[in-house]
Amino acid sequence: MLASLFETLTHGVYVIGVTDGTRHNAFTAAWLMQASFDPPLLALSINPRHSSYRLLQAGRVFTVNVLPAGRTDLARHFGQPASVDKLASVSWTADARGAPLLPEALAWFSCELSGEYPAGDHVLALGLVRDGKRLESERSPMNYRETADMDGASALLPASLVQS
Amino acid sequence: MLASLFETLTHGVYVIGVTDGTRHNAFTAAWLMQASFDPPLLALSINPRHSSYRLLQAGRVFTVNVLPAGRTDLARHFGQPASVDKLASVSWTADARGAPLLPEALAWFSCELSGEYPAGDHVLALGLVRDGKRLESERSPMNYRETADMDGASALLPASLVQS
Repeated sequence: MLASLFETLTHGVYVIGVTDGTRHNAFTAAWLMQASFDPPLLALSINPRHSSYRLLQAGRVFTVNVLPAGRTDLARHFGQPASVDKLASVSWTADARGAPLLPEALAWFSCELSGEYPAGDHVLALGLVRDGKRLESERSPMNYRETADMDGASALLPASLVQS
Repeated sequence: MLASLFETLTHGVYVIGVTDGTRHNAFTAAWLMQASFDPPLLALSINPRHSSYRLLQAGRVFTVNVLPAGRTDLARHFGQPASVDKLASVSWTADARGAPLLPEALAWFSCELSGEYPAGDHVLALGLVRDGKRLESERSPMNYRETADMDGASALLPASLVQS
């Protein structure tokens, strides 16, 4: 089975904002989808070893900033390790709970963490959508394929799958 | 908040195949994503009131057939209610566990149900990828936006969100 198999799955590209009320961080994620209509829930698969996960658990809120097509610069910026203060060099505001919002996003969602479930090397975080806004109606959202495996994801699949 | 907000989320279009060993069914789904690298897991959000959910629970396996761009005919066909025998009029084979595979798909994944979690009006089904194949390397996968709200999804959001 080839890594290119997994590339047939369609994902967007989002900047997820988190805060514990004092500290703030934001990171690029692709594994996000709608999971329920009513109540409106988003499911985010997050790496529990990343420092943003601790902020998520502490604050129990997150924002989803939808990146517009063509803004791989933003995807790359927020894909840097947490040792970089990624919010220091970009313009941002905060939602009602203090989680980061990017004015350059196509749209944003403001979510309350409503559940967490283990999922292999990740955790599924369910976000109840409390607010949201579409900032721009003309441009399309970014497709993860645009990033051309920027994060090296294809190297992270188990060798048994990649080699067979 | 407008329904168009949720349209900024990027999803693909898949035909999910299920079987209890005797009966077979397949249905169109958009809420699917990768959730883990190792082990390789897919997360599918499924409506528990649909009859395919009972087959999934009985058989504990499912296939994911990735639809190619342009094949909204297949998306529409498998989006019909379960009262229609959707597999009667198309060509299909079965994976090692008997779950339906579509030769017209771009790729398929064969999954074992490894967990189920409640998610509002849906259930998150985690599938451990046991096998898979990319059948075609030239065409692109279908994006849910191609279907132009074929399933009337925008009418299913809570009125409080749609009206505000």
